[in-house]
Amino acid sequence: MTRLEIIPVEGIGEVVPGDDLAALIGDTGVVESGDVIIVTQKIVSKAENMLVAVDPDDPLSHKPLVERESVRILRRRGELIISETKHGFVCANAGIDLSNVQRGQAALLPEDSDRSARRIRDGLRGRYDIDVAVIISDTFGRPWRRGLTDVAIGSAGILPILDLRGTPDALGREMHVTEVALVDELAAAAELVMGKVAGVPVAIVRGGDPAWFGPGNVHDDIVRSPAEDLFR
Amino acid sequence: MTRLEIIPVEGIGEVVPGDDLAALIGDTGVVESGDVIIVTQKIVSKAENMLVAVDPDDPLSHKPLVERESVRILRRRGELIISETKHGFVCANAGIDLSNVQRGQAALLPEDSDRSARRIRDGLRGRYDIDVAVIISDTFGRPWRRGLTDVAIGSAGILPILDLRGTPDALGREMHVTEVALVDELAAAAELVMGKVAGVPVAIVRGGDPAWFGPGNVHDDIVRSPAEDLFR
Repeated sequence: MTRLEIIPVEGIGEVVPGDDLAALIGDTGVVESGDVIIVTQKIVSKAENMLVAVDPDDPLSHKPLVERESVRILRRRGELIISETKHGFVCANAGIDLSNVQRGQAALLPEDSDRSARRIRDGLRGRYDIDVAVIISDTFGRPWRRGLTDVAIGSAGILPILDLRGTPDALGREMHVTEVALVDELAAAAELVMGKVAGVPVAIVRGGDPAWFGPGNVHDDIVRSPAEDLFR
Repeated sequence: MTRLEIIPVEGIGEVVPGDDLAALIGDTGVVESGDVIIVTQKIVSKAENMLVAVDPDDPLSHKPLVERESVRILRRRGELIISETKHGFVCANAGIDLSNVQRGQAALLPEDSDRSARRIRDGLRGRYDIDVAVIISDTFGRPWRRGLTDVAIGSAGILPILDLRGTPDALGREMHVTEVALVDELAAAAELVMGKVAGVPVAIVRGGDPAWFGPGNVHDDIVRSPAEDLFR
């Protein structure tokens, strides 16, 4: 095992609809082949023009959007709605939020964050000949535990889950169930240098195990279907 | 924002009941003041002799222990039990596991992982004059999402939650709810270099923001009470 570096990518600037994120990231000059690039949902939603107008004087004006973006409401408490989005994510307010967007706008989740990740990955390869994995991250709450953590809502070029089942443990015994949600751990690690206040929207995890890189995406490998879920 | 390093701590060796973890970690010579040290639950449980005998030929022999360690069973499916442990954690099989322990033994969770973290922190300060934060980590599943991630079950010397409410965002607007579960993101980051197969039980996150260090612990700040929880 070698050490990892988590590197904030600064100098991206304010992102507007139509921006090419691969170009914005590549032009910083800090990305190298073998890196995992973590990109926050907010700038992906902005680049893909997932912005909708809301009444800036009504703090609840985005609530109808929450209903529209949801396929199933799981819980309500006060203003808080926990729902399953049309993408299959279970989160608060359908992932819609108002921070770090212009007043009078709300940012919806990207339509297909796995596709967004693929585009950035393909763009970095095509324009700069850099071969990386890409994760789109967002900040979700959890039942049972207070506080929010960043998780992956899209990925490309990386195994979403490292399946260690059947691998001998350090004492030579076969391990039972250890499917590590690699993309979620990487998203959480990246958040540590992003700092919502500082507004760094991209981070790099450098030094990752070559065994991490491979096929799969968040929708197919991470999102649990309602039928498989014990809490829906 | 500066970059972080995630460093596996090698050379700890097999841990046995009675071992002084602060000494084992300090003697590796790699720990520095300002580090966050993440220690996996498994070696804490071993050092604190939380090992109990199970029938090595019966794969279900630890199931009565799961019931004993739980205060509330939330879900059962086949052999899987999701319960609330006496410590307040919601997880599979009351956190008891059989991998990386000797055949015929199961490891229970430490009685008080926050206390375990404090002891290691105090030991490193007392013996080596090194001032660090300590997190005890374990591997839990999640509803809604497949795969497991490491989370904090105990901490000392670090703010479990970074409360950014009321802080202006990058556009100067006040952020609504952003309470980052710092200790859980650090536990997840550390897992990336530990590798359950490689059996590295301790990792360091170096370069952390000085604002991370402060009072609090997992029990008081992270564990959500059943009354506050929407899914229990």
